[in-house]
Order: sequence, then C-alpha cells, then structure tokens
Amino acid sequence: MFQNDAFRALDRQESLRLLAKVPVGRVVYTRQALPAVLPINFSLDTDASVLLRTSPDSDLVRAIDGVVVAFEADEFDAATRSGWSVVVTGRATVVTDPDEHERLSQADPTSWMPLRDPVFVRIESEMVTGRGLRGTRGTQ
Amino acid sequence: MFQNDAFRALDRQESLRLLAKVPVGRVVYTRQALPAVLPINFSLDTDASVLLRTSPDSDLVRAIDGVVVAFEADEFDAATRSGWSVVVTGRATVVTDPDEHERLSQADPTSWMPLRDPVFVRIESEMVTGRGLRGTRGTQ
Repeated sequence: MFQNDAFRALDRQESLRLLAKVPVGRVVYTRQALPAVLPINFSLDTDASVLLRTSPDSDLVRAIDGVVVAFEADEFDAATRSGWSVVVTGRATVVTDPDEHERLSQADPTSWMPLRDPVFVRIESEMVTGRGLRGTRGTQ
Repeated sequence: MFQNDAFRALDRQESLRLLAKVPVGRVVYTRQALPAVLPINFSLDTDASVLLRTSPDSDLVRAIDGVVVAFEADEFDAATRSGWSVVVTGRATVVTDPDEHERLSQADPTSWMPLRDPVFVRIESEMVTGRGLRGTRGTQ
C-alpha cells in the first residue's frame, strides 16, 4: 500500500532500544468505557517491561491494575519529517512485593513529578511493535 | 493531592491553542478488543474538530469510523521538566460529503506521509481536557 512505503517496521530489539531513550510515554487505557491516554514518565526494567511510578490512590491505578493496556512513545522531527513510534501492549500490574518495590525504588530514575509514597506499575512487554518514518516529503 | 500540585488544568481555549501548535498527535482507540494508539499528522478545523488524513482502506478508518476515540498531543521539555498535554475525546467520522472533502483538501496542511486518494476523518471535540506541567524537580 502506497501509504506504508514511508514506514518500516522495527523489530523488538530496536523498538526497545528507542523506547529506552525517551523519558515520557503515554499509557493508553479505558476509563469509564471511553478511550483514555495519559503522558507519564517511565523506565524499562531489566526484563523489558515498562515501569510507571504513580500515586497509589490515582485514577490511573484504579483503571489499569490487572488490565491489558498499551504504552506508546515516539520522537518526530518536523524538519526532516522522520521519526519513530513504539507501542508496548500488555497487562499492567501494581508491584506489591516489598523486595521488588525496594529494588525498583533504588533503580528508578527521578520522576518529573513529586510523588509521596508512590507505587510502581509494571506493564509486561507482551507485544512490542515499532515503526520508523523515513524522512520524506508529502506528495500533496 | 500532592501529585497534582505540579499540574494545572487548562481550559478549552488554551488547550486548543496549544493543540494547534504541533503537527503530530496520537489517535487512541480500540482494535480487536485491545487498546491501540497511532501517531498521525492532524489539523484543527474551524469548528475545533480534529482532522486526520489517511488512506480510505486503512485499518485505522475501519476501526474508528463512527466510534468515540481520544486524540492526544503534548510537548515536554526534559531540561525544565515542563510541558503540556491535551486530549480531545469525541466521535470519529469519515468525511463523505464531496464539497466538504474538497474544502478540506484545499485547506489541509501538507501531510508528512504520501497518500493516494486520501480520506478525511473528523474527530468532534466534544470533550477537551488539558493540563500543564510546571517546571519542577522531583523530590525523589
């Protein structure tokens, strides 16, 4: 299809490498039966799962704990009209194990947002898809 | 709540003003019962609806025509840890009226992606929410 000539698929490894470069992604879920999306800082754990840090009483935690969500990050350059986007789809789970929580608290990069007694939410990277947009000029 | 001190809500007018500044947003929808998200060029129509241009036979059109979706755009500055995000939620509809299609074809800014015989999809801005993240340093 003509539209897709501008894109190339990225494999899992390249997708995760790109994902690790950026500090903010977007968690995509359902809230009150409507599609919802929230930008949030994240990091990648050693098993390539996506780690979010948020408030234990947040609407986000209530909406996504135990549910399959998507997590997206991207970078685009308007000058060259190139870039990439990566989507991780998998189950989100609040980390409840104290040792695991402690490990993540040590390893986690600084959040941009002050949080008191945060919890970690892990999104399993069950499905990782990525695509790169070649620098291209629109034909119309 | 402490977490939210870093954020301020943006009103509809300010949200739309910010949205008009950026060339790429992300359409958030459901595909095969899973949350899905796709970065895409867009523009704002005079009635503040979001306009996408895509292929008539795209998976996206099949998934969202007639369905309520979310559309998100944001800008964040890692250096100052500040930025904003805006989410438009509303029904997506393929533009089928020939006059309207012609008007949009004239007005639409150049897409980054070559498209043959594109269709326009309009997302009504039924609900517009925005938030600004003040420049702040995480406390942990």
